[in-house]
Amino acid sequence: MELLETRIAKEGIVGQGDVLKVGSFLNQQMDIPFVDKLAEEIHTLFASENVNKVLTVEASGICIAALVALKFNAPAVYAKKHNTSNIAGECYSSHLHSYTHNCDNTVIIPKDYLGVNDRVLIVDDFLATGEAMEALIGLVNTSGATLVGCAALVEKVYQEGGNKIRSRGIRVESLAKVSNLYGKNGIEFEH
Amino acid sequence: MELLETRIAKEGIVGQGDVLKVGSFLNQQMDIPFVDKLAEEIHTLFASENVNKVLTVEASGICIAALVALKFNAPAVYAKKHNTSNIAGECYSSHLHSYTHNCDNTVIIPKDYLGVNDRVLIVDDFLATGEAMEALIGLVNTSGATLVGCAALVEKVYQEGGNKIRSRGIRVESLAKVSNLYGKNGIEFEH
Repeated sequence: MELLETRIAKEGIVGQGDVLKVGSFLNQQMDIPFVDKLAEEIHTLFASENVNKVLTVEASGICIAALVALKFNAPAVYAKKHNTSNIAGECYSSHLHSYTHNCDNTVIIPKDYLGVNDRVLIVDDFLATGEAMEALIGLVNTSGATLVGCAALVEKVYQEGGNKIRSRGIRVESLAKVSNLYGKNGIEFEH
Repeated sequence: MELLETRIAKEGIVGQGDVLKVGSFLNQQMDIPFVDKLAEEIHTLFASENVNKVLTVEASGICIAALVALKFNAPAVYAKKHNTSNIAGECYSSHLHSYTHNCDNTVIIPKDYLGVNDRVLIVDDFLATGEAMEALIGLVNTSGATLVGCAALVEKVYQEGGNKIRSRGIRVESLAKVSNLYGKNGIEFEH
């Protein structure tokens, strides 16, 4: 999606250790009118799939999940990253290793919020090594819900997480596919 | 707001220790078309205030902040609850004690995302003892931005956090004011 690639090329900050920071418009600060256009694009891609639930993981996925869910007129659910005293009843859980923060978490979701009647679209801001998305796919599979597909705003294709998931026959759509952070003329994209 | 009160009375779960769980429609599972109506109401309340930034704190505030920001055609920013390796540059910080989770955090926001040109509306899902909102107000004041006011979906008025903030001349709007969780006929509201 050219709109997003242009913005990443202009405002994305490439840090050491393969880090791409888009916190000024996609993460801690969210350019909501812009992100809403990305949500519209994701809705268009999955419009025929009768999505009735959007699933993400806290915290940075919540914004895009909310805006995508609004297009589908559907609820959004986010998996929490650790157990808290504020969750009642039984939960589905899945293991998650965070590459960004170099730590391990369990992602959990109450069983009431995901089930056999749900047609789930998984949405997240970033897709790199794919651990977060794999953890969410695990929750969907365990719950008996139908996984319609996965959508990410930004995929680092060279980290292979997206293609690993695609190789299992799961539809994965990314609005911008970064192929090289350190290109001769800056960030490079795959089309 | 009757729409919200009716939903809380119907689906809110009152737990031990003064806990009101609304996770099935306002928190971990978000009834997005419903929450969007709440966002529209908050927009109406502050429509004349030229809001150009919506501020919240991760994670449960992000959904309502995103939907409110969409109405104002403005960016949303969320404060993070602890330092991470993924934040560049200098940050504003403020202390936060979480009543729900009984722990202390620092909330931080990069200085680039809040400044003297911002007219800020603080938005959160819950307002009880007010610690989260006070921490966000602290960030706004330190940054030199103008605080337009605060909006919460649900206020527990008897925990006094909202009135403490109002007593300092800050406008605080809550869409549902819970006055008693253990009323004779269920949850009671103040009007």
